Amino acid sequence: MLVDHTTGDDAGVYRLDDVTALVQTVDFFTPVVDDPYDFGRIAAANALSDVYAMGGRPITALSIAAFPEHDFPAEWAVAIVRGGADALREAGCALLGGHSVRDPEIKFGYAITGLVDPRRMLTNGGGHENDAIVLTKPLGTGILATALKAGEASIPAIAASTLSMATLNRAAAETALRHGVTGATDVTGFGLLGHAAGIARESRLTLEFDAVALPLLPDVLALAQRFQSGGLRANRRAFEPQVAHEGTLDPALEAVLYDPQTSGGLLLLVPASASAAVVGELAGARVVGRALSRGPQALRVRA
Amino acid sequence: MLVDHTTGDDAGVYRLDDVTALVQTVDFFTPVVDDPYDFGRIAAANALSDVYAMGGRPITALSIAAFPEHDFPAEWAVAIVRGGADALREAGCALLGGHSVRDPEIKFGYAITGLVDPRRMLTNGGGHENDAIVLTKPLGTGILATALKAGEASIPAIAASTLSMATLNRAAAETALRHGVTGATDVTGFGLLGHAAGIARESRLTLEFDAVALPLLPDVLALAQRFQSGGLRANRRAFEPQVAHEGTLDPALEAVLYDPQTSGGLLLLVPASASAAVVGELAGARVVGRALSRGPQALRVRA
Repeated sequence: MLVDHTTGDDAGVYRLDDVTALVQTVDFFTPVVDDPYDFGRIAAANALSDVYAMGGRPITALSIAAFPEHDFPAEWAVAIVRGGADALREAGCALLGGHSVRDPEIKFGYAITGLVDPRRMLTNGGGHENDAIVLTKPLGTGILATALKAGEASIPAIAASTLSMATLNRAAAETALRHGVTGATDVTGFGLLGHAAGIARESRLTLEFDAVALPLLPDVLALAQRFQSGGLRANRRAFEPQVAHEGTLDPALEAVLYDPQTSGGLLLLVPASASAAVVGELAGARVVGRALSRGPQALRVRA
Repeated sequence: MLVDHTTGDDAGVYRLDDVTALVQTVDFFTPVVDDPYDFGRIAAANALSDVYAMGGRPITALSIAAFPEHDFPAEWAVAIVRGGADALREAGCALLGGHSVRDPEIKFGYAITGLVDPRRMLTNGGGHENDAIVLTKPLGTGILATALKAGEASIPAIAASTLSMATLNRAAAETALRHGVTGATDVTGFGLLGHAAGIARESRLTLEFDAVALPLLPDVLALAQRFQSGGLRANRRAFEPQVAHEGTLDPALEAVLYDPQTSGGLLLLVPASASAAVVGELAGARVVGRALSRGPQALRVRA
């Protein structure tokens, strides 16, 4: 075993030989969007992401489904499974099997297995001083999902969020590996700063973010103060002690830093000389900060 | 992909190279015993079994847990996880990660990955005429679990059932491979005859069982007519049309043939010359029938 949960990395890694390791992860959750096909796509993109975040190539998937016995049209199950299958196909990942149970609450996801060259992995510990920090997707999926449940999210904002969550992190991972990136994670439940804290700890760096450079989904700033999930508040409590601020940050933008993401982007530590190329090749990616030698705080945010 | 769900085999198989394939499976369920540690062991033994049933060697596990937020002592979660970990350790299988959710109904299990030599797999299609049919664990876990819920199972019967369900199919698989077995499955939710039907179909054989030779857990015959689960009745409806009877079978014993098993034994098609050795090396294993050339019915039961 090369990587387990103690390093906070995104997936477990098991060495088969000197040049091949398995990278494995499992994730499933309740619907984050109303459309069952989109939910299936997002569930697959989210589960695949942990493999991409390690620099792996997904090869097999096992589905995990909990569907209600009553008040659950059969077409919904078909649409969820079809959405997932389409995303797996886009990833070149074979569906080998799965398990489903009856459950009053819908849940869906996958256990994913990928292959990775253990000499070329992306890990929390692979960042270096002076690296540019690149984020490959906009933030705010948690705030928008919370607003959606309250009936307060606009159709364009939900459409943009859905598209972003259903987008595979495959191109981001392949571009990162091609440009010599070794430090990366994906931004999911712990939010931007929670996952950044993992890189800062394992790479022994201070990560400095430029708040104004952060890519955001539509309407997120306008909704951020009214629609903070329990997860957002828990992330703030957990990670705020590691954050130093420079300047006065808009409280709405400050909330976004802790927003739990579903199928979020990759957070890449990119050699400075390659950052322009990486951002140029990945639509939506932005340089959002830089890695500094380790200071008193793991994380810094410049307003 | 070498094997998927279309052959009814126990796990999916994905070829890595000429001599190595991944064999993968996922299973999780609600508690089948009252003791949380035993439940964890059984959940692991059950999930591992699908890999053993293909002749694989389990290497990694991802846990899948649904635990209630309320009225669920933390010690229970610890005990379930510890029971599973002990069974994985006995299997030489590394726990790489997992996912847990809050859920009013306890569920626990694993996604398991094993390695198998694709030239030496155990499959539903690997049986041959004149093979002896060997069953490696006694039947009746479903009937006893149903009786347990009604408060009607004896302590010795539950103890024997728990021990049987927590026993790994590792020795059974290793012994089978050593003696040239190529046809096998494990006996789980479809019951003895349901899984036997899969072998009969894929191997193009008729499987003939001697009912009196079937190994049974304690008290099962006495309880079988009163404690038939919905799964047992569904299995009978599904598979009875494929069964020819010779002689008059005790109705209680007839029910056992369809009883869904949790972490049941392997059903092996053993070359006749090796059957005595296989049964001699595996405590609890019995010759329960033989494979015949394909007749009008897939399955025959002799009273």
